[in-house]
Amino acid sequence: MQIGMVGLGKMGGNMAERLRRGGHDVVGYDRDPAVSDVSSLKELVERLQAPRAVWVMVPAGAPTQATVEELGGLLSDGDIVIDGGNSHYLDDQKHAAQLGERGVGFVDCGVSGGVWGLQNGYALMVGGADNDVQRLMPVFETLKPEDGGFVHAGAVGAGHFAKMVHNGIEYGMMQAFAEGWELLEASDVVTDVAGAFSSWRHGTVIRSWLLDLLVRALDDDPELADLRGYAEDSGEGRWTVQAAVDHAVPLPVITAALYARFASRQDDSPAMKVVAALRNQFGGHAVTSKEGQTGKGADAPGADVVPPVETDR
Amino acid sequence: MQIGMVGLGKMGGNMAERLRRGGHDVVGYDRDPAVSDVSSLKELVERLQAPRAVWVMVPAGAPTQATVEELGGLLSDGDIVIDGGNSHYLDDQKHAAQLGERGVGFVDCGVSGGVWGLQNGYALMVGGADNDVQRLMPVFETLKPEDGGFVHAGAVGAGHFAKMVHNGIEYGMMQAFAEGWELLEASDVVTDVAGAFSSWRHGTVIRSWLLDLLVRALDDDPELADLRGYAEDSGEGRWTVQAAVDHAVPLPVITAALYARFASRQDDSPAMKVVAALRNQFGGHAVTSKEGQTGKGADAPGADVVPPVETDR
Amino acid sequence: MQIGMVGLGKMGGNMAERLRRGGHDVVGYDRDPAVSDVSSLKELVERLQAPRAVWVMVPAGAPTQATVEELGGLLSDGDIVIDGGNSHYLDDQKHAAQLGERGVGFVDCGVSGGVWGLQNGYALMVGGADNDVQRLMPVFETLKPEDGGFVHAGAVGAGHFAKMVHNGIEYGMMQAFAEGWELLEASDVVTDVAGAFSSWRHGTVIRSWLLDLLVRALDDDPELADLRGYAEDSGEGRWTVQAAVDHAVPLPVITAALYARFASRQDDSPAMKVVAALRNQFGGHAVTSKEGQTGKGADAPGADVVPPVETDR
Amino acid sequence: MQIGMVGLGKMGGNMAERLRRGGHDVVGYDRDPAVSDVSSLKELVERLQAPRAVWVMVPAGAPTQATVEELGGLLSDGDIVIDGGNSHYLDDQKHAAQLGERGVGFVDCGVSGGVWGLQNGYALMVGGADNDVQRLMPVFETLKPEDGGFVHAGAVGAGHFAKMVHNGIEYGMMQAFAEGWELLEASDVVTDVAGAFSSWRHGTVIRSWLLDLLVRALDDDPELADLRGYAEDSGEGRWTVQAAVDHAVPLPVITAALYARFASRQDDSPAMKVVAALRNQFGGHAVTSKEGQTGKGADAPGADVVPPVETDR
Repeated sequence: MQIGMVGLGKMGGNMAERLRRGGHDVVGYDRDPAVSDVSSLKELVERLQAPRAVWVMVPAGAPTQATVEELGGLLSDGDIVIDGGNSHYLDDQKHAAQLGERGVGFVDCGVSGGVWGLQNGYALMVGGADNDVQRLMPVFETLKPEDGGFVHAGAVGAGHFAKMVHNGIEYGMMQAFAEGWELLEASDVVTDVAGAFSSWRHGTVIRSWLLDLLVRALDDDPELADLRGYAEDSGEGRWTVQAAVDHAVPLPVITAALYARFASRQDDSPAMKVVAALRNQFGGHAVTSKEGQTGKGADAPGADVVPPVETDR
Repeated sequence: MQIGMVGLGKMGGNMAERLRRGGHDVVGYDRDPAVSDVSSLKELVERLQAPRAVWVMVPAGAPTQATVEELGGLLSDGDIVIDGGNSHYLDDQKHAAQLGERGVGFVDCGVSGGVWGLQNGYALMVGGADNDVQRLMPVFETLKPEDGGFVHAGAVGAGHFAKMVHNGIEYGMMQAFAEGWELLEASDVVTDVAGAFSSWRHGTVIRSWLLDLLVRALDDDPELADLRGYAEDSGEGRWTVQAAVDHAVPLPVITAALYARFASRQDDSPAMKVVAALRNQFGGHAVTSKEGQTGKGADAPGADVVPPVETDR
Repeated sequence: MQIGMVGLGKMGGNMAERLRRGGHDVVGYDRDPAVSDVSSLKELVERLQAPRAVWVMVPAGAPTQATVEELGGLLSDGDIVIDGGNSHYLDDQKHAAQLGERGVGFVDCGVSGGVWGLQNGYALMVGGADNDVQRLMPVFETLKPEDGGFVHAGAVGAGHFAKMVHNGIEYGMMQAFAEGWELLEASDVVTDVAGAFSSWRHGTVIRSWLLDLLVRALDDDPELADLRGYAEDSGEGRWTVQAAVDHAVPLPVITAALYARFASRQDDSPAMKVVAALRNQFGGHAVTSKEGQTGKGADAPGADVVPPVETDR
Repeated sequence: MQIGMVGLGKMGGNMAERLRRGGHDVVGYDRDPAVSDVSSLKELVERLQAPRAVWVMVPAGAPTQATVEELGGLLSDGDIVIDGGNSHYLDDQKHAAQLGERGVGFVDCGVSGGVWGLQNGYALMVGGADNDVQRLMPVFETLKPEDGGFVHAGAVGAGHFAKMVHNGIEYGMMQAFAEGWELLEASDVVTDVAGAFSSWRHGTVIRSWLLDLLVRALDDDPELADLRGYAEDSGEGRWTVQAAVDHAVPLPVITAALYARFASRQDDSPAMKVVAALRNQFGGHAVTSKEGQTGKGADAPGADVVPPVETDR
């Protein structure tokens, strides 16, 4: 089928290519004229025959917002916009409402796959109305891996919500491996830590693609000596925790994994300064309250304190 | 090679069978005479030619302890005991010392594999002296999966330590999937939760054997309606956390996973009774301190308290 | 000074009374005509002399929103609205902007104190412009406890932000006591648990008003036998965690306390159903993948799985 | 009454002094002859009239162990040893059994109080047999604060168990304040953070001695600029977590507080190196599995992986 692709970067460009290889008629637009088939969104829309389908593959947030709004002014009743970026599911719902006022459909699609997606296909998590998703199935069929990797997860927002939760689970799994590695390294009991991880790839409960990746990393650098213990977090981990709090769902593992990333980016922990300060106060040096010193504090909280000499006293 | 196998239950029996299929000469002993080749440990030892190798495959704790001790009295200089159960690594070190006094070697081996191990092999994590492990390699080669699944992780204790950490990682991974599922179910955004999990088996970062298992469970019971949210914990999860505390290693994810299991087994949370009690105290009914009532408490902590009407005041 | 008070419930009514006792001229409005001095917000505004000050003491969310909007239409340049409810700090900033368009000032005030506030004063955390806060100081001076309990924490929103963090800290402290109690009860080592808590009120590091409250609760019911382990959470605990995630601040303790409340309200943990399901899958019963059954799955993930007989294998 | 005091350091020396001021006959022994009344434990025991009471106030672990053992050889039926150090409750039970073989009683006593204890008294948590504790009550009465701070918590070990849990609660409370401070500092909403903490000392739910101490610290250094975010942990925090794991009690808050201290002492987080390594692997550079490179891996796990270009893909 015919489809417009907005954003021809590493992801969008490869996806356009995979669609073309699959026999689809792709018209691509990018700010970079060197890779763009058309000079503007307006021209893109003009080049497509109604009912149109336009796949937006630009960064989440303001760029996606601006693109959706501009497309909203150009498209017509019966057209569809697909947001394949990493948008928040509540933004999807907002975008769907905005476009819906003009009769334009909206489908959100969480995409996983990266550089190998061109060859092997992209995992797709899709949200939207049944008829919209149905109409786009030829595109999804071409993009997805041969043996699975596709779900129509629900109404608008469900695709990005599912992708968001996928990433939350990913955080927890990564941290589980990370903690296991740290414990093995910290003890002197297991002397071939990299070998243990490597052996776990076969016959164990924890075998997984993440383990495969970790073994590759350890093959290159068995002590991870070239790496700093520093990790960024994508917005989706944060959104997972915030969605959980909104829904009163306890996520201790996923949240702990997110917080470990936050902490990894601090040179020094502000919170632990407070703990250190309190331990200093325990230390037996003068902790007389100011009220006490001026003599008016006989009943002031703290005036009769019994500070320990040592922390644990 | 020739090997004695003590404990011919589901694990030990199948392992003996796999070894026999691999051409080894296995003499088995079990308390159940119906499956046992010999009538006692003493007879087992007599049937084996020195230098002997005896694989102990009985429950951890007292049974393993008793078996190792009895074998210690029967075996001779140059023999080897292998503990393939789930013993604590510190017990391994104790057992090795006990046997070592008589010149008997000791190797610990964490085993993963279950019912399919007979057919596909068992993942083996081994601790012990190089020459002991070397001598047993024919056995390990036969037991392990074809393409990997074996590590000589270090000295005595290293095998069970590695297995223990494997299980800790497993806890964290399981909980990560569990939390993702709960969040998806709690929100009304994703309506095909089982479909989302199924789609993740292909092309995503979180694909893994545990995900495969979960998808199978959801195939049978998409809402897990037949299950209670109740989970036992094996000793190894607890040992992982305790080893981490001993080594000052923070394990937030693995510990959270363990605690979630603890909590799942409580009908009512004792801790949350305290939180409820405090919230009741906040509630504005009489919270006068006893000292205050007797008139002697003007400066007692709490006598001048300002209790909020509502919890969050 | 003259001040309008909107909302004469338990909090607002007592605050109005404390202000009157302090010599202020309070005009109160409530939906309940039995306690209201005026019949409408319009009449309230008419009764006040410009520049007016109107303290809003109604539930956060829609009621506060509606009150602020209606006041915005009635008040004039130079008037001030104070929001003493439990609003989110971002709503404060929105309300301040809305009112600011008409020249009306806005001050937010987090209030702690409850039923004893009438007698002992209310802890006040205030956000707003210096001149607005300055003009309201006579009111704050009367409301606050004699010896402290007031802070001008920053610009608009700072008062409710400070109150929100106060409540987050409160969650963590309550949970710390709760966990200590549970551990003491679970072990059979300490047989006088209530006595231990009571003894801690004097001379220890953890003495605090919360401990005083807990001891009172244990005086009434030493085993807390009459209570369920069930705790609601106010919005402010959730907001604290969400603000932390927004700012990339790790809050492991406060978040754990919030999650413990979430979990306390679940009859059964959905997440632990997944853990139970996975443990069942480990159990050695048929785990053949569907692909495997149809014969096409020799290389499918899961087809060569090695399921353990028991959980920890 | 007459009592021997072993260990005349900052704690033991002051406690001996408080006892003397209270009219007791104290015979002190210390390795430092300058402060010791006797030249050896043997002489100490000889100086005391049967039935003797000897208070041991030396570091936990080996020093306490050695002292108890030596006293065991010197004391007689009817004498009592009191361990006022920070011993583990299981060591208490061992020491009681050892001494009990000779008819010597044992009482454990967790002590809180530090430098101000001399003046204001020490909080005491006591474990032991009723008659042993009863006999020592004159000593406890003199040592404890006037208005409370004493509990006979149960049999041998209960005193140190209660003290251990006290310290666990303390960890959680300190971390709660620490997290609140970090969040306030991280946001730009509250501009007078130290002022907010100071205001909380009056009329709020979180007022406590720890808050008093923190306000003092902030008075000296409002940004805690002179401190590193680094905190040691006493053994008792670790023991609390380990006891909880032994009893299957979830302690999310206390454990998180302990782990925050562990993490504060790491220059770089080993675990986060693994997370970083995995994120690097996601990055789209060659992640071909070794099996894949040798051509035999078409169906190897990982050979058909679909690595995302970016972390969150």
